[in-house]
Amino acid sequence: MKSIYLSELYQKEKDYLGKKIIINGWIRNHRKQKEFGFIDFSDGTAFKHVQIVYDNQLKEFDEIQKMRVGCSIKVTGKVVESPKAGQKFEIQATSIKLLGDCPEDYPIQPKKHSREFLREQAYLRPRTNLFQAVFRIRSVAAMAIHEYFQSNNYLYVHTPLITTADCEGSDQMFKVTTLDLNNLPIGEDKKVDMSKDLFGSTSYITGSGQLHGETFALAFNRIYTFGPTFRTENSNTKTHANEFWMIEPEMAFCDLEGLMDTEEEMLKYVVKYVLKKCPDEIEFCDKFVENGLKEKLEKLLKSKFTRITHKEVIDILKKAKVKWEFEPSYEDDIAKEHEKYITEHFNGPVFITDWPKDIKAWYMKVNDDNKTVAAVDLEVPGAGELMGGSQREDDYDILLKRAKELGVDPDSVDWYMNLRKFGGCVHSGFGMGFERLIMYLTGIENIRDVIPYSRTPGNCLY
Amino acid sequence: MKSIYLSELYQKEKDYLGKKIIINGWIRNHRKQKEFGFIDFSDGTAFKHVQIVYDNQLKEFDEIQKMRVGCSIKVTGKVVESPKAGQKFEIQATSIKLLGDCPEDYPIQPKKHSREFLREQAYLRPRTNLFQAVFRIRSVAAMAIHEYFQSNNYLYVHTPLITTADCEGSDQMFKVTTLDLNNLPIGEDKKVDMSKDLFGSTSYITGSGQLHGETFALAFNRIYTFGPTFRTENSNTKTHANEFWMIEPEMAFCDLEGLMDTEEEMLKYVVKYVLKKCPDEIEFCDKFVENGLKEKLEKLLKSKFTRITHKEVIDILKKAKVKWEFEPSYEDDIAKEHEKYITEHFNGPVFITDWPKDIKAWYMKVNDDNKTVAAVDLEVPGAGELMGGSQREDDYDILLKRAKELGVDPDSVDWYMNLRKFGGCVHSGFGMGFERLIMYLTGIENIRDVIPYSRTPGNCLY
Repeated sequence: MKSIYLSELYQKEKDYLGKKIIINGWIRNHRKQKEFGFIDFSDGTAFKHVQIVYDNQLKEFDEIQKMRVGCSIKVTGKVVESPKAGQKFEIQATSIKLLGDCPEDYPIQPKKHSREFLREQAYLRPRTNLFQAVFRIRSVAAMAIHEYFQSNNYLYVHTPLITTADCEGSDQMFKVTTLDLNNLPIGEDKKVDMSKDLFGSTSYITGSGQLHGETFALAFNRIYTFGPTFRTENSNTKTHANEFWMIEPEMAFCDLEGLMDTEEEMLKYVVKYVLKKCPDEIEFCDKFVENGLKEKLEKLLKSKFTRITHKEVIDILKKAKVKWEFEPSYEDDIAKEHEKYITEHFNGPVFITDWPKDIKAWYMKVNDDNKTVAAVDLEVPGAGELMGGSQREDDYDILLKRAKELGVDPDSVDWYMNLRKFGGCVHSGFGMGFERLIMYLTGIENIRDVIPYSRTPGNCLY
Repeated sequence: MKSIYLSELYQKEKDYLGKKIIINGWIRNHRKQKEFGFIDFSDGTAFKHVQIVYDNQLKEFDEIQKMRVGCSIKVTGKVVESPKAGQKFEIQATSIKLLGDCPEDYPIQPKKHSREFLREQAYLRPRTNLFQAVFRIRSVAAMAIHEYFQSNNYLYVHTPLITTADCEGSDQMFKVTTLDLNNLPIGEDKKVDMSKDLFGSTSYITGSGQLHGETFALAFNRIYTFGPTFRTENSNTKTHANEFWMIEPEMAFCDLEGLMDTEEEMLKYVVKYVLKKCPDEIEFCDKFVENGLKEKLEKLLKSKFTRITHKEVIDILKKAKVKWEFEPSYEDDIAKEHEKYITEHFNGPVFITDWPKDIKAWYMKVNDDNKTVAAVDLEVPGAGELMGGSQREDDYDILLKRAKELGVDPDSVDWYMNLRKFGGCVHSGFGMGFERLIMYLTGIENIRDVIPYSRTPGNCLY
């Protein structure tokens, strides 16, 4: 007889009721009584556990009673209706065999652990309810993103991680090397001779796949990337990690309005998908992480996102009867307090467009006013900035000028510049930090708790 | 009127026939005659191009005739049945507007370019038929992998890329650092003081997510990774790259037989999916890259994969009337010539199991004979080794002994070791190099031609 998974049991409850099954998994809790016992059992394939009931008719009754929380077991039994409130069925065991023992001092006991404690047990925390919910939502949301883009005929591109192009500011990128740091080759100029390194020059791991993504958009029309990204920021906040995942779509023949349409449609698709596929996980997070989470997500699906310029936002902020910590300015970025005010003001997500060009990147399309760029940030209630994008500068001469203004060496990205010479077109793209999305979908406040093994300054454990 | 994509036109040919449309894209070829002209047009969303027909009734006729290969254009016209053999419809233009010009010396002309030349034009080669086929198959195959695992309820895990664990041999890993190589902090021991680096210690970008993957398999039962991987190998062959993508599934309560079942089922799923979604791309590769490709793939779907031990393979090789370059040995790995012979001998894919333990990794399950490990390589006709996997050692004491034997510091991976203490179980996993799969699916022989921007020793362009 083949063993089954708990997920199958929950998908086909009616088919299994009254049937004999074999199932493998772990003891999450164990209540023992003199003549019988109850095991809270999970095999990891479903968020919901199942109750295993056994009694002293079983010849291994004494051994079963010794099985501790954390043990892996093989259960043979019959699926029966449950008398217990809140669960439809349970398993009446005819045999329970120990597969893998677990000691008394196993760190993950059936009680509330602090998130700080669980971060220290990062390799065991996926066994807790909270992280079963978070990492399942993470996996399902990743699939939602792939489904959205593939069903809309976007090409998935694996842009390179190792790069020699330092156009984004190499001081924000990790260097990668095969050289022995204690025995570096020194050149005639008394500096490290990087030509001796594997790639023959200084190389980095990248902070964005956008530039490479654009080259594919100008061949395949609509593309997306989805991969890991790195920043060297020495910043220990709740929202910064040195390694995280990004989604970077790029679309040819697409202007800022088209870009916003895509961002809104994609976000709604992902939220709807997760609500449908992870109802138990969302309910758990609603109850134990962020009260009102489910309502927040359902409200997003129904809302029409506001579209407003940076100037209009500053007007609203200046008129607001609020004592700001940071004074709103037409020339500046907006602060967290402003983001919060604006999404509350419009009671929903807000696209802020047309930012002052001096605070934005060199590749963004300069507007006719020559003061602003066709950039857009999406601000979402409770999460702040979730996506950032822009129309890309498609005029070769303006792009060259902007590169020089902002200290980018145009020769180092001549291929990127050339896209404007060889059949260029209006095109746009955006980036979404995947962890920020997961924080929004789960209500989790610290980025360390939505990444399997987070990397932050001074912390690269496991 | 909203513009449409070529992919929509091909999906709903009948709906569009006789209708007026607007479409944006690029000129791939342009044949001019005195009173009319034909544009071979692609917008990148479909492998097939479409023919645009125009004549001198259009007021911009003279300007259109000047439009060169590579230009981006906006076409308004009517979809009509085509008199030309091999295409069902064409577009009779009522207007063609130039969006982005392209110079005479544009490198991608409508003629055969060598793959070596195209590697040097890596940012433009996605515009050629060959790379339109290859990268679309790559994108579709990636989706097939996600669909296979997600529909079977595997959790997608983003294992970390930056790591301080050097259990796989740090000499094969890239070091990552934020330190200034020309101004390194030196400690009292005269060595570089790595505590000054961002993570407070030497860190690497990883060559595998397996160890971290196992920690999640022992919580979620069945998981997979799909992400970039790095090796520092200074090897300039057709099959080596320093950056590539890997898929690494791990399954709890799964032995070597179960592992092989999954590998076979997954591979067939992906091949079937690609054949269905990319018929034009596969046909193109069959014609211009590998004759017989389609037949090879269809044959795989029908074949039952052979399962045979390493010892049996060596027996067969020794009996074969072949003069080997490398003599087959019961203690050794098998060579490329042996792989080829064996898949031809069995006329299909072959799982080779139970390898001599001395040539395999420390975490593989030692068999009862204490000479071999429960490892398996999948050999595929025409591609050689496509996947490698094993049952993982689940006995703490044996694992500890093996780690020490093979020079792995158990303390550096105590968390991994501990999985055997805290409810361990029989579990197995495998790794598949994604590029090797794409080479198999397209017939492409050089790994540089299946990666958007390949990184090989001395080569990190773009």
